[in-house]
Amino acid sequence: MIKVGIIGGTGYTGVELLRLLASHPQCEVVTITSRAEAGKPVSALFPSLRGHFDLCFETPDAANLKQCDLVFFATPNGIAMTQVPDLLAAGVRVIDLAADFRIKDQATWEHWYGMQHACPELLEEAVYGLPEINRQAVKQARLVANPGCYPTAVGLGFLPLVEAGLIELDTLIADTKSGVSGAGRKASVGQLMGEVGESFKAYAIPGHRHQPEIRQTLSLAADQPVGLTFVPHLLPMIRGIEATLYARLNNKDVGDLQALFEERYLDEPFVDVMPEGSHPETRSVRGANHCRIAVHRPMDGEMLVISSVIDNLVKGAAGQAVQSMNLMFGLPETTGLEQVALLP
Amino acid sequence: MIKVGIIGGTGYTGVELLRLLASHPQCEVVTITSRAEAGKPVSALFPSLRGHFDLCFETPDAANLKQCDLVFFATPNGIAMTQVPDLLAAGVRVIDLAADFRIKDQATWEHWYGMQHACPELLEEAVYGLPEINRQAVKQARLVANPGCYPTAVGLGFLPLVEAGLIELDTLIADTKSGVSGAGRKASVGQLMGEVGESFKAYAIPGHRHQPEIRQTLSLAADQPVGLTFVPHLLPMIRGIEATLYARLNNKDVGDLQALFEERYLDEPFVDVMPEGSHPETRSVRGANHCRIAVHRPMDGEMLVISSVIDNLVKGAAGQAVQSMNLMFGLPETTGLEQVALLP
Amino acid sequence: MIKVGIIGGTGYTGVELLRLLASHPQCEVVTITSRAEAGKPVSALFPSLRGHFDLCFETPDAANLKQCDLVFFATPNGIAMTQVPDLLAAGVRVIDLAADFRIKDQATWEHWYGMQHACPELLEEAVYGLPEINRQAVKQARLVANPGCYPTAVGLGFLPLVEAGLIELDTLIADTKSGVSGAGRKASVGQLMGEVGESFKAYAIPGHRHQPEIRQTLSLAADQPVGLTFVPHLLPMIRGIEATLYARLNNKDVGDLQALFEERYLDEPFVDVMPEGSHPETRSVRGANHCRIAVHRPMDGEMLVISSVIDNLVKGAAGQAVQSMNLMFGLPETTGLEQVALLP
Amino acid sequence: MIKVGIIGGTGYTGVELLRLLASHPQCEVVTITSRAEAGKPVSALFPSLRGHFDLCFETPDAANLKQCDLVFFATPNGIAMTQVPDLLAAGVRVIDLAADFRIKDQATWEHWYGMQHACPELLEEAVYGLPEINRQAVKQARLVANPGCYPTAVGLGFLPLVEAGLIELDTLIADTKSGVSGAGRKASVGQLMGEVGESFKAYAIPGHRHQPEIRQTLSLAADQPVGLTFVPHLLPMIRGIEATLYARLNNKDVGDLQALFEERYLDEPFVDVMPEGSHPETRSVRGANHCRIAVHRPMDGEMLVISSVIDNLVKGAAGQAVQSMNLMFGLPETTGLEQVALLP
Repeated sequence: MIKVGIIGGTGYTGVELLRLLASHPQCEVVTITSRAEAGKPVSALFPSLRGHFDLCFETPDAANLKQCDLVFFATPNGIAMTQVPDLLAAGVRVIDLAADFRIKDQATWEHWYGMQHACPELLEEAVYGLPEINRQAVKQARLVANPGCYPTAVGLGFLPLVEAGLIELDTLIADTKSGVSGAGRKASVGQLMGEVGESFKAYAIPGHRHQPEIRQTLSLAADQPVGLTFVPHLLPMIRGIEATLYARLNNKDVGDLQALFEERYLDEPFVDVMPEGSHPETRSVRGANHCRIAVHRPMDGEMLVISSVIDNLVKGAAGQAVQSMNLMFGLPETTGLEQVALLP
Repeated sequence: MIKVGIIGGTGYTGVELLRLLASHPQCEVVTITSRAEAGKPVSALFPSLRGHFDLCFETPDAANLKQCDLVFFATPNGIAMTQVPDLLAAGVRVIDLAADFRIKDQATWEHWYGMQHACPELLEEAVYGLPEINRQAVKQARLVANPGCYPTAVGLGFLPLVEAGLIELDTLIADTKSGVSGAGRKASVGQLMGEVGESFKAYAIPGHRHQPEIRQTLSLAADQPVGLTFVPHLLPMIRGIEATLYARLNNKDVGDLQALFEERYLDEPFVDVMPEGSHPETRSVRGANHCRIAVHRPMDGEMLVISSVIDNLVKGAAGQAVQSMNLMFGLPETTGLEQVALLP
Repeated sequence: MIKVGIIGGTGYTGVELLRLLASHPQCEVVTITSRAEAGKPVSALFPSLRGHFDLCFETPDAANLKQCDLVFFATPNGIAMTQVPDLLAAGVRVIDLAADFRIKDQATWEHWYGMQHACPELLEEAVYGLPEINRQAVKQARLVANPGCYPTAVGLGFLPLVEAGLIELDTLIADTKSGVSGAGRKASVGQLMGEVGESFKAYAIPGHRHQPEIRQTLSLAADQPVGLTFVPHLLPMIRGIEATLYARLNNKDVGDLQALFEERYLDEPFVDVMPEGSHPETRSVRGANHCRIAVHRPMDGEMLVISSVIDNLVKGAAGQAVQSMNLMFGLPETTGLEQVALLP
Repeated sequence: MIKVGIIGGTGYTGVELLRLLASHPQCEVVTITSRAEAGKPVSALFPSLRGHFDLCFETPDAANLKQCDLVFFATPNGIAMTQVPDLLAAGVRVIDLAADFRIKDQATWEHWYGMQHACPELLEEAVYGLPEINRQAVKQARLVANPGCYPTAVGLGFLPLVEAGLIELDTLIADTKSGVSGAGRKASVGQLMGEVGESFKAYAIPGHRHQPEIRQTLSLAADQPVGLTFVPHLLPMIRGIEATLYARLNNKDVGDLQALFEERYLDEPFVDVMPEGSHPETRSVRGANHCRIAVHRPMDGEMLVISSVIDNLVKGAAGQAVQSMNLMFGLPETTGLEQVALLP
């Protein structure tokens, strides 16, 4: 049994981790922290967990994190970096579901996150936890940076084309849409149902933190810098991300794109290349750790259109973290992650 | 392995059965029928099932149902009754998720369902599949009538009070609200999102088929006829039923109602009596087989208010059917039904 | 032109007042206050108002409220009572959309609202602004207490029966459901779309402030105390209240209930008795000042069921306030209130 | 008073026309047709219209359409073209809200709509009813082709850039999202709330009928062919379209884009260029005839991003048709179209 601790368990990422770990046969959650809710049973905050967990939230100080084999940080950005060095020193492995270790370049990170990095010396070591590109490294990792939700959907959609060198890299476009759970569970006027229900909008057009993260992934895959226009939108629903990706072929005599995608992801348990002509729905992955992708070339033109869907809380957060945990501890990668999506 | 057949697998009850059976360790779906979709893979109709089932829909004639240990009918009302006698004769056990065998009195059934019953001789034998009252009978049953969604939520909410004889039985009120998946997956203007989204209404106030079904359950429990006003409403959401029940105490010196409910359901794996003062949310059971109940006595008056929630497709349909299957085949009752609700 | 001031214009009631007053031909909004947003154009906060208002929010101190003919308070409870005496003394008439003057009995008010009343001497004078019972008094009023949203829907539904003396008054039940805009526009976890979307629950079963308000209205109409069980619920949608009301006939030989309702509301411009057998939808009044009502007597039994719908922000708040304003200033009651509901 | 007839009044475009015309001071709806609902009051089908219209639906034959000054076709594609010549011959002016006269090139139309055109001789004369480019022609028109919903949002967003010659015309991208009312009010499984609620997907990536319509508008504006990738998506909400448009500058030393947009639409009553840095929300135009647009140049790069929102049933259908009617009959263009958007 892997002994697991969760730091910051009152948000949507935290409760989703608990949901997944409840049915994971090889791990046990031994502590979960929250300053605000210390002393309260997790099932009092989240009645969906009644009967599954007896745990109470503990203050971070009270929690004996060093007894854990693995600690998940489900905290706001900037928390993990202050505590990770200590845990690593104590031999605890860490998966950070926030952004502290996602970007390799310290200056870029500090620019986008508006703070100084507390342990830049770990940026190099941290493994970007997208198993589809870093599986071997994740297995060995002491510290995994769990990818952002948009970067997962966009990265997996573009990767086969970038790796194969088939597209122009300077004008990639990712038009992405996310359910409201992506904004987290904290009091705010802007996320009230009265504000975001029955409405739709783009946001952060001038710039969003996930843009440099995606660029990093794709630039590494391309072995050269890529240019990306990234526009996120807010959907009037709870779970799900859809990314519509636009890329221009650099050569019209491209081969079978469907086959390219299918081959790239042939052995990937959680990436599903849909049949030709498909339009993936976010509900087809609701609650599941899958990314479903379709590739199109409208009217046989130069522009490719890829549609990629994930559940932002699963493959875009907690599920992907569990996938990395499985790799880190030598378990079959799909352990505890075989839930069928909830449809309808 | 239990060999399972599903008749009529293209509706919401069908796909939900498949979702649950996909992770059930002791059964195998060997055939699923649909006239309209014969030849099509189930995962083409429901992409959420990709990777979980290789089955194609078969015509009812082609399907070798008699090879099955158990057949689920996930059909419209009036279909099962024409096929059940044959299957029983062949030694196949049956769970009907429609209404054909729910009401014991033939005349009442024919009045509310507007057709002649095709095999009234089976009405007596059919076991009403609410394990919380009929567990032993379900274990032995050849034919189980899976309860309606509203009757499950309302029945479980009223039962402790009715069995204990604490309330006036002539003026029970059940004000119930259901998500749209309760209306099924068939083309209709009235269920378009443009018609039912962002709106709310009562329906069927003059009379609804679930009223006699609930009365039957409660009258049996009370051993006398009960009077019930039943009003259903349509919620602008997909899954979930909430029933708010009103009952008048027949004696003000009633004891501890919270304890009464807790004791009644102490050993029930799928009925959760919430702590005093709770207000159950439908999302706390989304995708799970639980019924969560809270009992209130506002201002210590004569009127009790019970709030009961289920997922109409799980405890209100497919999950309850799997629960009965487990009982019928001697499995632990919770096998394959331990999903944590999807929250948020 | 009526010169109008609005205190507290950043909530949903405030923006709805502005929407309605934008097309009101006989009034001009001369000032609108908000401490938090002072200096900001109202159309910057609410882009829907671009082109309709040039006003900026002012601090309450800066606003010259005494120049106004009428001031609307669209503030949290407990604000209006501290400022109203001054305004009245200056000859300004007032409509309070909050609860400060709704309940005549000071002790009851203080019990439910948890504070001391700042000007109890005005409770007697304040007119409860439900034109359907207090039209003449509203015309003369200096101070109008605009009714709560639930009390409007419930009161109008029960009134014809209570006034006619046809029902038992000790066991009235109001099972009510409201869209999330009823909870206002303030930062809170409990009203995030991630918390209340795709879910449904009862709340405040032990007691809700609107219960004594409704009892006051119905007790006055009955000229005797009434007993009421009142249960509110939260709908996963933005606008709309539906109230399902249950009342027991005190005599089975009641006459034509449909005619009773139609006659009671024959001359009411904003109460629409639907044809026999109807089920009002909240969307049929979205954005409109109407209350639509249907009366049912299921299976000709003793229990009546009334369904009543309003838009909580219009007939349940801002629209009803404008209706009172029209009466106070001698305008046709429907002035500026003839919007057709937005359907779909 | 303009005497107006509506052909096909049972869809969402029909009921929206009625909503707008109910408050239009200069026109009277004298007949409305529907084969399926003939004899039924329009307010029985759409209770939101109770008190606003006494009309009943008539069969097309019974309706005396030739008495009308103007007939709106709110019919499926392919109906108007069979009846328009007769009406024009009788001196009746026509606005077709369907697609029969939107595309000038007969072969293109027949390709995308899959039928033969019944009166190609009128294609040249028909005026494309986007007042922002064709105001003078609309005033004189006998026959107006009301633009599609997506083409309105996309066209208005790209026009200033195309007219000014600032962007590369071969790789325009329009990533568009529509509420479900765009799919109309007809029985279909695919539009059930159970299918489209709480989910999101792209559709018609290989090709959509609005693509050639948009290309026609932009090619005329550019005076040369444009290349456009157009991807529509289905939003889990009822009303609203957002179009995110991507265009590459053909010269980095472009001037003030904000000023360009503001000047282009300075005199347009229904196009609102939002302040720099804005992100228009669909709810800011819900029920209103406005298009709100924001223009962005992320990180001062080569790629421009424009976000444009409309209510698909108003500026995208019925409202734009009323705008054209006003022009055709010499009324102020905004008559009857000054509704404030319903927010929240």
